[in-house]
Amino acid sequence: MQLEAVVQRLELEQLYTDYVHCLDSDELERWPEFFTEDCFYRITSAENYDAGMPLGLIHATSRNMLKDRVSALREANIYEPQRYRHLVSSIKIVEQRRDTLDLVANFLVVRTMQEGDMTLFAAGRYLDQVRRQDGSWKFAHKDVVLDSRQIDTLLAIPL
Amino acid sequence: MQLEAVVQRLELEQLYTDYVHCLDSDELERWPEFFTEDCFYRITSAENYDAGMPLGLIHATSRNMLKDRVSALREANIYEPQRYRHLVSSIKIVEQRRDTLDLVANFLVVRTMQEGDMTLFAAGRYLDQVRRQDGSWKFAHKDVVLDSRQIDTLLAIPL
Amino acid sequence: MQLEAVVQRLELEQLYTDYVHCLDSDELERWPEFFTEDCFYRITSAENYDAGMPLGLIHATSRNMLKDRVSALREANIYEPQRYRHLVSSIKIVEQRRDTLDLVANFLVVRTMQEGDMTLFAAGRYLDQVRRQDGSWKFAHKDVVLDSRQIDTLLAIPL
Repeated sequence: MQLEAVVQRLELEQLYTDYVHCLDSDELERWPEFFTEDCFYRITSAENYDAGMPLGLIHATSRNMLKDRVSALREANIYEPQRYRHLVSSIKIVEQRRDTLDLVANFLVVRTMQEGDMTLFAAGRYLDQVRRQDGSWKFAHKDVVLDSRQIDTLLAIPL
Repeated sequence: MQLEAVVQRLELEQLYTDYVHCLDSDELERWPEFFTEDCFYRITSAENYDAGMPLGLIHATSRNMLKDRVSALREANIYEPQRYRHLVSSIKIVEQRRDTLDLVANFLVVRTMQEGDMTLFAAGRYLDQVRRQDGSWKFAHKDVVLDSRQIDTLLAIPL
Repeated sequence: MQLEAVVQRLELEQLYTDYVHCLDSDELERWPEFFTEDCFYRITSAENYDAGMPLGLIHATSRNMLKDRVSALREANIYEPQRYRHLVSSIKIVEQRRDTLDLVANFLVVRTMQEGDMTLFAAGRYLDQVRRQDGSWKFAHKDVVLDSRQIDTLLAIPL
């Protein structure tokens, strides 16, 4: 492994780090910027993913659709009393092509309600493809694959 | 990113790694050594932090106060049957000045009681300022900002 | 820290990353390959570990025993409805000898049942010794030390 590979690895970790802090700080307006314009974004269950079901709970095929989603969320939720905390671990480069990479990473999201109750909100893996654009990495494809299939309340927020 | 930046990044990860193992091994006597002499340390809730409330649940303005706290803990707790396990994720350099850095990181602490019950004990973020001193990084300022505001039982241990 | 040390650090993180994805993807047949032929593997509780009790819940003294264990698991469990998700954090080099390293790392495993219930399944630390063999790192010794002593259901899977 040369310095170039080391730097790339840290850049990718940085990407997930920035992504997570954007979500946990509820700065959702910045969230679409982590994606390419022609991105694919989906939240689905492992069960559906393994069965090759194309549709997910959330499904977007462009950055503009992500922006629309944020707008809808902001209109719907006047007040959001809960907080989310992401833990990301074990980021792995699965395949490396010229300017795109396939990655997998584990995540856990803990939700804290205003009264203080903490719950395991979501666990699963990110199956991502990132592409280098204008000197930084963007998600060209992100499958958020949840271990659980009970994900109704997830509708509220991106993961 | 050059080698120097890469090394700095790994040193900072190392700092959190060492910090966490110190706490999880209950080697609290070593805990104040992670801080500068004139450090600021506080545990507070996100709600209080966002509202700009100055005081926290725990509040110290020097390394000596941290030592006193450890002494008090050791006297109060003859026997500590529970274990804590920290998970730290997404360490981010927010701002870099000449010899100090502002950092944010996510954490989750799981508590295991002697009988085996595991609970989500605390989730939140560290808002830290680290300073290079005698060849190693020390916390000059550490705000432990908890997602929950129900933190009474936290009084027992540093985070 | 020179480039060589940086590369080694990332290689070790990679080892844990690969290990975790192998388990979480239920590719248990590949699991013994992470170990040396004469490996030691044990799952034990912190209580037993601290008391110096030699035996653990799972105890193996060779890679072949790990393979046997996987075979037994496959025969016993026709259908495994639950999913496991590992989070690993704070990997630390405790001691570095010529071609072996002592490491400690924190882990958390979340289990999701088919109906969607998520639970904290296991938390603890890995106390490992890794050895460089044929250009890659292998576990020569792995102690999975659980914070909890209630670990009966753990019998099902490696950690």
